[in-house]
Amino acid sequence: MTEKGKLIVISGPSGAGKSTVVNRAIQGRDDMCFSTSVTTRAPRPGEVDGKDYFFIDEERFQEMVENGELLEHARYVAHSYGTPKAFVEKQMAAGFNVILDIEVQGARQVKERSPESVLIFILPPSMEELRRRLENRGTDSAEVIDARLRRAREELKEASIYDYIIVNDKLDEAAAEFAAILKAEHCRYAHRRHLLETF
Amino acid sequence: MTEKGKLIVISGPSGAGKSTVVNRAIQGRDDMCFSTSVTTRAPRPGEVDGKDYFFIDEERFQEMVENGELLEHARYVAHSYGTPKAFVEKQMAAGFNVILDIEVQGARQVKERSPESVLIFILPPSMEELRRRLENRGTDSAEVIDARLRRAREELKEASIYDYIIVNDKLDEAAAEFAAILKAEHCRYAHRRHLLETF
Repeated sequence: MTEKGKLIVISGPSGAGKSTVVNRAIQGRDDMCFSTSVTTRAPRPGEVDGKDYFFIDEERFQEMVENGELLEHARYVAHSYGTPKAFVEKQMAAGFNVILDIEVQGARQVKERSPESVLIFILPPSMEELRRRLENRGTDSAEVIDARLRRAREELKEASIYDYIIVNDKLDEAAAEFAAILKAEHCRYAHRRHLLETF
Repeated sequence: MTEKGKLIVISGPSGAGKSTVVNRAIQGRDDMCFSTSVTTRAPRPGEVDGKDYFFIDEERFQEMVENGELLEHARYVAHSYGTPKAFVEKQMAAGFNVILDIEVQGARQVKERSPESVLIFILPPSMEELRRRLENRGTDSAEVIDARLRRAREELKEASIYDYIIVNDKLDEAAAEFAAILKAEHCRYAHRRHLLETF
């Protein structure tokens, strides 16, 4: 029997290095996948339905919201985005740990609708270092950077809903912590309770 | 600043291989120690006070019970045994993860008195394998083995108070799970909350 996967939600300020940590941690593993979101926006050139997103219309989106088919959803600019519950559960049943990279509000919705999900908040070592990283990217104006830092401070205030905090100071250690959390969560009583029934 | 250690409680049936798993997992680490119990029994030849046990008299033991100075205590045969809270907390404050190898009743007491402690139940792969291991030891009569297996079944019924279950099927994997649990617990929101204050 394939062991059921876990739903892993990661959040953290822009510039904390979420993707870098996760990509390092899942390198070479065949038991991990990213969630695919539904969206009402049109596909961009090269985007593939069912891979980059599930592209749906506003009517179907509203239906999914009303039927409780989404683990979380949000509106950005003029479009809606959400995480389809059935898709995530199918991946987990097939043994995949599903990674969901979303903001704090979405993480809160997921925890409510899927209490056994694992919420990880990824922190930069300090605000000064976060500023340095954003500046070194060279993609944002000073104004945008200030806005991102303000946003980061707000997100930090909400971090108490998360199960774990990883500080992305040394990448290898942060990735090792991510992997350890995943392994530990597979040892949780609730995840292994069924083993006791075989005794 | 030294990071505070965790209190790790391990339990499991006799023959599950608790000590073997833990000893493999802590090999070469300098951040781990075992708890030292207080006992009212007399030292055996070669036993050192403060190392093997803290040897105390019945009056002092009762005083410790009444003052809430013990994380757990139990009576075996004619003597009392307990885990001194102050000693454990001192080790944790010094950065040590303190391991406590006790039975289910004691684990329950520890969880009540120290809710942030981490309870791990170590399982054999199956009852048949547990019987095989006990028989291969060659130290117990068939009767004693039967009694141990009955006891194991009773302990399993209480396993729901534990945070984690490790199945000691392959020793290296079981030890890796123990290490992962420890690393993950150091990433827990409650354990790292203080980091957010520096932002």
